[in-house]
Amino acid sequence: MQDSHAATTESAAASPAAYAPTDRTVPTRSPERASYDRALVHSILDEGYLCHLGFVRDGAPIVLPTLYGRIGESLYVHGSTGSRPLRTAGRTEDAPGIEVCLTVTHVDGLVLARSAFHHSMNYRSVVVLGTARAVIDEQERRTALDALVDQVVAGRSADSRPANAKELAATAVLRLDLDEVSAKVRTGGPNDEPEDAQLPYWTGVVPLTRGHGAPIPADDLDPAVPLPGYLANL
Amino acid sequence: MQDSHAATTESAAASPAAYAPTDRTVPTRSPERASYDRALVHSILDEGYLCHLGFVRDGAPIVLPTLYGRIGESLYVHGSTGSRPLRTAGRTEDAPGIEVCLTVTHVDGLVLARSAFHHSMNYRSVVVLGTARAVIDEQERRTALDALVDQVVAGRSADSRPANAKELAATAVLRLDLDEVSAKVRTGGPNDEPEDAQLPYWTGVVPLTRGHGAPIPADDLDPAVPLPGYLANL
Repeated sequence: MQDSHAATTESAAASPAAYAPTDRTVPTRSPERASYDRALVHSILDEGYLCHLGFVRDGAPIVLPTLYGRIGESLYVHGSTGSRPLRTAGRTEDAPGIEVCLTVTHVDGLVLARSAFHHSMNYRSVVVLGTARAVIDEQERRTALDALVDQVVAGRSADSRPANAKELAATAVLRLDLDEVSAKVRTGGPNDEPEDAQLPYWTGVVPLTRGHGAPIPADDLDPAVPLPGYLANL
Repeated sequence: MQDSHAATTESAAASPAAYAPTDRTVPTRSPERASYDRALVHSILDEGYLCHLGFVRDGAPIVLPTLYGRIGESLYVHGSTGSRPLRTAGRTEDAPGIEVCLTVTHVDGLVLARSAFHHSMNYRSVVVLGTARAVIDEQERRTALDALVDQVVAGRSADSRPANAKELAATAVLRLDLDEVSAKVRTGGPNDEPEDAQLPYWTGVVPLTRGHGAPIPADDLDPAVPLPGYLANL
């Protein structure tokens, strides 16, 4: 028990329990919904695999959906070496990288108030700001690509053919460290005005669910190949 | 029938069947997945209500999740008059507005190839570029707020208390016209390399589903208020 406690203390020292708020991560609206808690941020990121990645091109904002993977305090995104954000970031150790905003959102419920004004959503989101830089080291690139696959389906990277040299050369990987980070969470029921309590409108929350259907084998899959356990238990 | 045909023709003349591609909406990667078809764009937008809105603040990209509503060829977003993007856009007819990128994404399936490299997603996304401007006209503001509520639950705006003068004054509404628009769609199974066909890995698509649980009434809802039809048939 003492050893375990020591390990926990050491880990906490290396990674404080919360990210430090900055001018850019303290919201002007609903600050009570903002959190910098590291475990909460990790849990929101780990529940998803799709982010919306924002960057600036010719002075204008661009937002594209893309996959991400988390390893510790780093997020990884990938793409063709020809894609615009990945080209902009550069492909060398000393390239300037690209300023990005990486946002992950889970919508958990529709909040229907008696007044139109108080309609809302229950949601959990994470916003990560910073400079994404090209990953050059081959081992880190391979580990990041595995993390991207495993973020979507845990266990899948070990059950597929790893990238070969040509595929690796065609793939750019960017790393964005978790440093300037905030989460925002809304839970609970509607916040109607007291004077609206007697209005004859239904009010409450519609919980939203995410799921999946039965996996559909590819046309050319050998029927002798069984459905892997990580898909049966998805 | 002739009248109906005439109306269709007139409508098509006013709104061509496709948006005009621009330098910014022709992707550098997978151009075969891009579409400018107006009906496709509308269908993707109408299936959702959550967008990721990107804008530039102090030269850096910011991406925030927010609700939207569509009326014809305009999208509307709203927020507190104190929120940063809405403040930046200005609140007068001649304010410069704010350059945004509004992105809507539906993930339909996980595409598991035999090779890690060919893993992908089936998805439908829309990216709208342009300048969002404050809506000043009170009737347009009211119509836009109704559209925002009805985008989430069709029929709800007519079954809730409309915004009063104080609430309207506290709400900023921005309009972004559908002008520089593209959709991107991936469907179908994995695109494995022919030489990988004999590898012993399961390959195919995991379809994703979205749904909702039973609506949860607010604690203070009068039990005599029935569940409205638009929720029973959601």
